[in-house]
Amino acid sequence: MLQSEIFIKTKKEAPKDEESINASLLIKAGFIDKLMTGVYTFLPLGLKVFRNIENVIKKEMENLGASEILMPVLHPKSNWEKTGRINTYDTLFKFESFYSKNELILGPTHEEIISPLMAKFVSSYKDLPKYVFQIQNKFRDEKRAKAGLLRGREFFMKDLYSFHENESDLDDYYEKVKKSYIKIFRAFGLGDKTYLTYASGGTFSKYSHEFQTTSSAGEDTIHICDKCGIGVNKEIIDEQNVCPECGNKNLNSEKAIEVGNIFKLKTTYSKPFDLKYKDKNGNEKDVVMGCYGMGINRLMGTIVEIHHDEKGIIWPEIAAPFKAHLIALKTKDLKIKTFADKIYDNLQKSGVEVLYDDRENIGAGEKFNDADLMGIPYRLVVSERTGNKIEIKKRKDKNTKLISEKEIIKILKG
Amino acid sequence: MLQSEIFIKTKKEAPKDEESINASLLIKAGFIDKLMTGVYTFLPLGLKVFRNIENVIKKEMENLGASEILMPVLHPKSNWEKTGRINTYDTLFKFESFYSKNELILGPTHEEIISPLMAKFVSSYKDLPKYVFQIQNKFRDEKRAKAGLLRGREFFMKDLYSFHENESDLDDYYEKVKKSYIKIFRAFGLGDKTYLTYASGGTFSKYSHEFQTTSSAGEDTIHICDKCGIGVNKEIIDEQNVCPECGNKNLNSEKAIEVGNIFKLKTTYSKPFDLKYKDKNGNEKDVVMGCYGMGINRLMGTIVEIHHDEKGIIWPEIAAPFKAHLIALKTKDLKIKTFADKIYDNLQKSGVEVLYDDRENIGAGEKFNDADLMGIPYRLVVSERTGNKIEIKKRKDKNTKLISEKEIIKILKG
Repeated sequence: MLQSEIFIKTKKEAPKDEESINASLLIKAGFIDKLMTGVYTFLPLGLKVFRNIENVIKKEMENLGASEILMPVLHPKSNWEKTGRINTYDTLFKFESFYSKNELILGPTHEEIISPLMAKFVSSYKDLPKYVFQIQNKFRDEKRAKAGLLRGREFFMKDLYSFHENESDLDDYYEKVKKSYIKIFRAFGLGDKTYLTYASGGTFSKYSHEFQTTSSAGEDTIHICDKCGIGVNKEIIDEQNVCPECGNKNLNSEKAIEVGNIFKLKTTYSKPFDLKYKDKNGNEKDVVMGCYGMGINRLMGTIVEIHHDEKGIIWPEIAAPFKAHLIALKTKDLKIKTFADKIYDNLQKSGVEVLYDDRENIGAGEKFNDADLMGIPYRLVVSERTGNKIEIKKRKDKNTKLISEKEIIKILKG
Repeated sequence: MLQSEIFIKTKKEAPKDEESINASLLIKAGFIDKLMTGVYTFLPLGLKVFRNIENVIKKEMENLGASEILMPVLHPKSNWEKTGRINTYDTLFKFESFYSKNELILGPTHEEIISPLMAKFVSSYKDLPKYVFQIQNKFRDEKRAKAGLLRGREFFMKDLYSFHENESDLDDYYEKVKKSYIKIFRAFGLGDKTYLTYASGGTFSKYSHEFQTTSSAGEDTIHICDKCGIGVNKEIIDEQNVCPECGNKNLNSEKAIEVGNIFKLKTTYSKPFDLKYKDKNGNEKDVVMGCYGMGINRLMGTIVEIHHDEKGIIWPEIAAPFKAHLIALKTKDLKIKTFADKIYDNLQKSGVEVLYDDRENIGAGEKFNDADLMGIPYRLVVSERTGNKIEIKKRKDKNTKLISEKEIIKILKG
């Protein structure tokens, strides 16, 4: 992609109305735009990152045998009355429609929709287990949406739901999802800071689990067991001051971002929606459910919180909008321009995603600053000084190296 | 994909609360589910069709040089006050947020968002032209949402916006978009029934244009010129009873579905949002805009309205969830099962998308009925009678033919 042609520009100043590092950097670098508190537009490069994150998650969902669907944003109030959450879910957006004085609800989560949907398709043990997920925009009337992409009023979430004959089957799947989640966080370079964390299971399970990434930007506090390395949420600590995994009493508290949560719903949502099946003996039983959430916006924000320095973002390769950022200096020098154009063409032909800073009348300092801010993994520079070689530098490293065109393709294709 | 494993089932009866053919067939065939009036879930096969439609459109947007972004559903009321449409747009969903008594709006279209967004990035003639699109869910409090996917309260739309220095540049791009739209409708087999239609241009243009597909399911009436073959909307006919293209007076009225519209907005939205640029001489001028809409749900519904028979849907290949529907009869006969499994594996290895009806204890009649209902382009049958050959039949044809495994791959890869 030619940098002269994308409609985005970086900003010299951080936005004044953003407290969070993630939104400040993403806005400054031209990845997102703020429409209002907790509501953002994904600009072309931000959308590329969004799709990359989506693809990693979708691949894991496929590995988990889950089918993708797409449920609506608009929910009928009646579904939320059936579960009683109309009165207890405190961030619901509610409003009227022409069709009825009954309120509509903007979906903050989809148990109230997926459960009656599955009741239409599940009737026998032969129909189970089933795994269904979507990546879809959710809405919550958050009272403190000040953390950029970490807590939005409108945001995208991957929500996976599983449906089982019994709890033992749910337990097995739940463990599989745990592993998938860990794989996803590792893929984005969050593995060493992300803790499987015990949280309250509500009235129907002893525990649920969260995945918490330690960060000063976190709104949660977790207690990390110095023996078995798992996290414990405050609500559990308040109850019992020991690690629920190993009984250890040495727990160190840290700020953390909740990047995922998994929950054994059991029959909480199948009961109100008559989601039942007939077992092998013809007996009618409630379907046993699990749900597994992961916020896409929040994951993107967390990646930025963890992977940045004072100059800007440092994207992990798998999330980066491009693999390489090719910078031509003195583009009015025909020799330099021709050489840079050739490298750009060859990289594209080799299937390397590259952003080419071909802008005229922009100095080296500004181009380097933009590259550091945007955080593309490899910076390639062509200038008077590089001759027929190219200067390569990893965003996360300080050292530069002069290499030949052939070597570049080899490195970037590897 | 194994039909025994997808969580969808076809229904024997058409849904009782659907008047439209498109929603009836799509629900019966297990492609979508109705949550409430004008609000549907896309089930796995429906989502596959949705993505196929999306991909065709995205490719055309790329050809038009447009960058993809993703704008929010939640809009601040203030943006709609600036254009005055808060009072004139009659299907706005409005509601309150914790943050303010000011209403939020669920976006029915995005001129009020894209214009101030572009004002942040456009300042000089060097920044123009720019083309930006999104595929995003929209919301309208429709008072008659009875036409299935043709008119929803929640639906997906591709909206493209273009930004120019002057009207002549807008005119050129507008003609290019016209051609792209025609290509898209042709791709889905709607070309011969879709008419470029003159509609009112409002207060700022003489005409805008719609693309109307003739169908008894249509809610619009267009008048088709029997000389030049263009359509004319009722509002134009009421004013002047001649074809605006060629002056002909012979116009035949037909029911039609509006599948797209394109509009020269000129400076209607740039003015209220101060979307200006400096020209070569340093003079400040209003940016000239165009907008180009196309509903994804509506396109999917229109494809079904046009391409179906009394037995079910007949998907055009490019929209179909699979290219082939492989049906094994008497799957308990090991010889048949083994042969069908082998064909399934080989088709998948060859990159042919295939749905394999491997279900046990389901008779030939039911399997054939399901195949006709679901409308996958090629039906392949393996049974006692086909021996070491496969019976192939196009969904739209009546003739069957016995062919070898090699031939099948050749036909389906072609």
